[in-house]
Amino acid sequence: MAEQQYSIHPIGWVESSLAAADQAPDQEDHAGAPAAWLVFAPSVRAGLRDLRIGQEILLLTWFDRARRDVFVVHPHGDPANPETGVFSTRSPNRPNPIALHRVKITATDGLRVQVAALEALDATPIVDIKPVK
Amino acid sequence: MAEQQYSIHPIGWVESSLAAADQAPDQEDHAGAPAAWLVFAPSVRAGLRDLRIGQEILLLTWFDRARRDVFVVHPHGDPANPETGVFSTRSPNRPNPIALHRVKITATDGLRVQVAALEALDATPIVDIKPVK
Repeated sequence: MAEQQYSIHPIGWVESSLAAADQAPDQEDHAGAPAAWLVFAPSVRAGLRDLRIGQEILLLTWFDRARRDVFVVHPHGDPANPETGVFSTRSPNRPNPIALHRVKITATDGLRVQVAALEALDATPIVDIKPVK
Repeated sequence: MAEQQYSIHPIGWVESSLAAADQAPDQEDHAGAPAAWLVFAPSVRAGLRDLRIGQEILLLTWFDRARRDVFVVHPHGDPANPETGVFSTRSPNRPNPIALHRVKITATDGLRVQVAALEALDATPIVDIKPVK
């Protein structure tokens, strides 16, 4: 069973002014994060039909620039924070680097959806969107 | 860019009494869901070190028995519910069938972690664990 793998097919990509690794995402601190556009593949258009301005959504992205071989981290990359098992942190570096963002829709334009305050680098693949419960 | 894929390597598997598709997961209704064990791969042991009984966690699983070609659904599979874009629902059938469960840790035993009320079938692959913010 341990050899089984599954394929993520991105449903879209992030368009953001965050381009550099030193503007790295920190899922626990949205302060200062820019608005971003989510640009979806035409193949998933029907799935987007009920997204509306003002809704809060859970956005799942794939941190394609993360390290996948990290199991213990200093939270927020700060050596002053004690070493912590990665599954007790929101570090982007983890075996399956899926990030979970709660964001608000601020505009829609066909296959493009704008959200406020997204901590994800430009061109980050989008995995899924779910409603906030 | 649309051809790019990413590989999920499961970090573990669910051990549950839910075995049949007609007991299918419904992420919006935990009522009656059984306790389950999360059984992790030895390779991720270090990442588990700070998980504790009583903690609430976000568990990400891969619904390996889901359909990935569904973009519009009747929520909860009920024809009485109007058709809805899949990204506005918690349907297990979606392009990247990742499920998000908020669950409480009720026991730990090395590579095994027990959680309460999990709506996931037996042998469902585990993708990630994150702390609840």
